[in-house]
Amino acid sequence: MIIDCHGHYTTAPAAHTTWREVQQAAFRAGESPPAYPTVSDDEIRESIEGSQLRLMRERGIDLTIFSPRASAMGHHFGDEAVSLAWTRACNDLIARVVKLYPEHFIGACQLPQSVGVPISHAVAELRRCVEELGFVGCNLNPDPSGGHWTSPPLTDASWYPLYEAMVELDVPAMVHVSAVTNPNFHATGSHYLNADTTAFMQLLQADLFKDFPDLRLIVPHGGGAVPYHWGRFRGLTDMLGRPSLDESVMGNVFFDTCVYHQPGVNLLFEVVDVDNILFGSEMVGAVRGIDPRTGHYFDDTRRYVEALSLSPGDREKVYEANARRVYPRLDSALKRRTREEVN
Amino acid sequence: MIIDCHGHYTTAPAAHTTWREVQQAAFRAGESPPAYPTVSDDEIRESIEGSQLRLMRERGIDLTIFSPRASAMGHHFGDEAVSLAWTRACNDLIARVVKLYPEHFIGACQLPQSVGVPISHAVAELRRCVEELGFVGCNLNPDPSGGHWTSPPLTDASWYPLYEAMVELDVPAMVHVSAVTNPNFHATGSHYLNADTTAFMQLLQADLFKDFPDLRLIVPHGGGAVPYHWGRFRGLTDMLGRPSLDESVMGNVFFDTCVYHQPGVNLLFEVVDVDNILFGSEMVGAVRGIDPRTGHYFDDTRRYVEALSLSPGDREKVYEANARRVYPRLDSALKRRTREEVN
Repeated sequence: MIIDCHGHYTTAPAAHTTWREVQQAAFRAGESPPAYPTVSDDEIRESIEGSQLRLMRERGIDLTIFSPRASAMGHHFGDEAVSLAWTRACNDLIARVVKLYPEHFIGACQLPQSVGVPISHAVAELRRCVEELGFVGCNLNPDPSGGHWTSPPLTDASWYPLYEAMVELDVPAMVHVSAVTNPNFHATGSHYLNADTTAFMQLLQADLFKDFPDLRLIVPHGGGAVPYHWGRFRGLTDMLGRPSLDESVMGNVFFDTCVYHQPGVNLLFEVVDVDNILFGSEMVGAVRGIDPRTGHYFDDTRRYVEALSLSPGDREKVYEANARRVYPRLDSALKRRTREEVN
Repeated sequence: MIIDCHGHYTTAPAAHTTWREVQQAAFRAGESPPAYPTVSDDEIRESIEGSQLRLMRERGIDLTIFSPRASAMGHHFGDEAVSLAWTRACNDLIARVVKLYPEHFIGACQLPQSVGVPISHAVAELRRCVEELGFVGCNLNPDPSGGHWTSPPLTDASWYPLYEAMVELDVPAMVHVSAVTNPNFHATGSHYLNADTTAFMQLLQADLFKDFPDLRLIVPHGGGAVPYHWGRFRGLTDMLGRPSLDESVMGNVFFDTCVYHQPGVNLLFEVVDVDNILFGSEMVGAVRGIDPRTGHYFDDTRRYVEALSLSPGDREKVYEANARRVYPRLDSALKRRTREEVN
């Protein structure tokens, strides 16, 4: 089967998106937001079937690890209560998609991060999503400030309460920033890629995985700039007196295939071990158009992977086995499903 | 001939580096710094011959466009007067290297940027370096705050006074950040690459080169994450309703070859037009070690370029012609030199 580890619910029903605007306006006005609106199953079906699910079917993708729209997480906005209410609404909506299409989607949650708020406050929502909603992972924002980078690095002990919960629950995090308020950055054009590169370098510099040998992080968008500059990073480990990347980082860090042209995907597979690559498309997302050079969608990353001359075993790793290893709760869910089908 | 467009004086004599420390301590204490020390020609020769010049000879590099150590520019530190004094000292030292080794070095200057100070205040030093010291380019820091990104994007009109001077003087800028005080970033491991990606995306989003058709910018370190994500950037132009990269950006933007492994350099040349690539090594710089996989220095980028199957014409572009086109004052200097040799 083909598992896409990186899908966002970017086509959520208008009532959901509008409520966020109303919530933000209420916060600005110092008022309480109205109750979250009713969203019907039909509205959800409509938002999924014509876009995400249609594209998955067209591209032969069986299952997507589905999370709320990353650029809308907006951890920089408002306060802790605002972030928590919005996060719960987003995660609950993902849970409804999963319930409607259990064969095609499984959930990864947004966390209720907020500037200056200890990450321990996000653990309850992670636990709710995993234990009550059946989610298998989460998205962790290394820069809740929205492009001002005011939090400590991901290797700082202040993040440890989340990592402890992740290890206990056996779920990985995708390192994923959100929208920016800093005019220097474009969310999907530079901030996302910068965050990926930044996080990887932080992990190279510290001993996070000595403290958490079972912690697993996905660095999305093909690892930002990292594979293209693989020699630079290998050389920096040497210059900084750090252990090799294989030894200190690559047992716990995984890249997705969200690189939107053939030469980039070729390079990714040339320099990064196939065990560290998870199929992903970031679809429907950052780049929605059709590449005039190929006639295919930029984000139809399966085409690029298919064009590699991978052995059947390696293809199966990238499409399925690595995801099941990195997301053990996904593996369990798929095994449960198989048992139910047999019975 | 082989021109390296990206060399920094990272081995400057101790007296120079120590003076910077003393200058910084004086600023912190609210005192005036002592006079800049005497640095002898021998001290300069010693700092160059055993390192930069030796490596250039070993690698067959004829000429380096040489600028002050980027990580030491430190525009975030102190105030405008501190930055100007340090910048002048750094540029004067480059001028002395060029005077001692005119066949091997030509200067590019650091600018006396300072947080919150209009860029117009940097024009006099640019003019001094070009008109009096014979420099052919400059390094422009898009983030003088040192990793807090508090300045407007490079496409903002507040930067225009510098661009006007650059066009008038016919010199390009290499977009190059300096050290960071933000603990999220590692200067050479993430901040440099992030700045490259950030700058490119800023240029994609705006019409800077409509306003300055003759402005030329070098985005170093192989363009940050950009070539690896070339499809993403091509797709974003389409999504944002922008003209194609060829039309709006690539007539004025150039990447160097500071990518420290063969697959990265292969990708750079696969996706970027050879007219937009300038040979560079960032030597002696970010990564100084030897790659155990190849037995050669990571930053010996000539090996990677040599391993490409470039036509003789394309090799000549990357090694020489593109640099002479992007740095017309370098071209003039080389022509003057040839005429002098003939006479």
